Amino acid sequence: MPTDPSQSVEHCPVARAVDVMGDRWSLLIVRDAFDGKHRFSDFQRSLGVAKNILADRLRLLVQAEVLTTRPVAEGSAYQEYVLTERGEQLFAVVVALRQWGEAHLFGAGEVHSQLIDKASGQTLAPLIPTTLNGAPVAPSDTEVVKVTD
Amino acid sequence: MPTDPSQSVEHCPVARAVDVMGDRWSLLIVRDAFDGKHRFSDFQRSLGVAKNILADRLRLLVQAEVLTTRPVAEGSAYQEYVLTERGEQLFAVVVALRQWGEAHLFGAGEVHSQLIDKASGQTLAPLIPTTLNGAPVAPSDTEVVKVTD
Repeated sequence: MPTDPSQSVEHCPVARAVDVMGDRWSLLIVRDAFDGKHRFSDFQRSLGVAKNILADRLRLLVQAEVLTTRPVAEGSAYQEYVLTERGEQLFAVVVALRQWGEAHLFGAGEVHSQLIDKASGQTLAPLIPTTLNGAPVAPSDTEVVKVTD
Repeated sequence: MPTDPSQSVEHCPVARAVDVMGDRWSLLIVRDAFDGKHRFSDFQRSLGVAKNILADRLRLLVQAEVLTTRPVAEGSAYQEYVLTERGEQLFAVVVALRQWGEAHLFGAGEVHSQLIDKASGQTLAPLIPTTLNGAPVAPSDTEVVKVTD
């Protein structure tokens, strides 16, 4: 992961996103953070990852401004990790991965976790790329162009 | 990556998705496949990745049924790689990563590629997780529960 993604030579936003998030642990740390986990020990227990790797990935996610640290209590020397605004905006990425995993990587009857809307108790709607007018678009309806703005 | 995701002990669909796709190269290979690249040499030129790593990732993506191979022409011994139906369903993941990268990882005036709807020439709508009724949901509106089905 680059220390400053805006210094990257990559012109593709997917590539820059993947530079920051294209790592098994980084994606699962962010999933856990959405799930309310904040402490090093919570991530460690959830992921079963070696402490040095977890510490490294947390440091990189803080550096990339996806996570920020705060004391666990006022005046405490212990830090916990919370999603920044930039990190919160990864919600669609995590939901898209979840929906793909649910649809394609489980057998019938297999237990799996599900993300529900607390108010209705129902699952979320499938994330479907659409035009600005809301019409679904297939990959073949799209093309990649270069722009400046 | 496990050879058979349905044999994974992971109950979380995000974790299974990440087992298959949580790798810089796998995500960028799939991006390139959406962008119309099919041949080993096209991926290699686009990604600048070592041939042995590219061969390994392509093999794993075929094994995970994200890509499939076909002869480049009838009777040819050369193979090319195309997205399966399962692979095509990763469109929302790639679009979500792209939109996050565009919004957060580029400075003003920086050149970057953009995905457009060919018919309108416009960018796609932001992917926003919603309830089944279409109401936007924030991460804090949701929770993870375990289910069987």
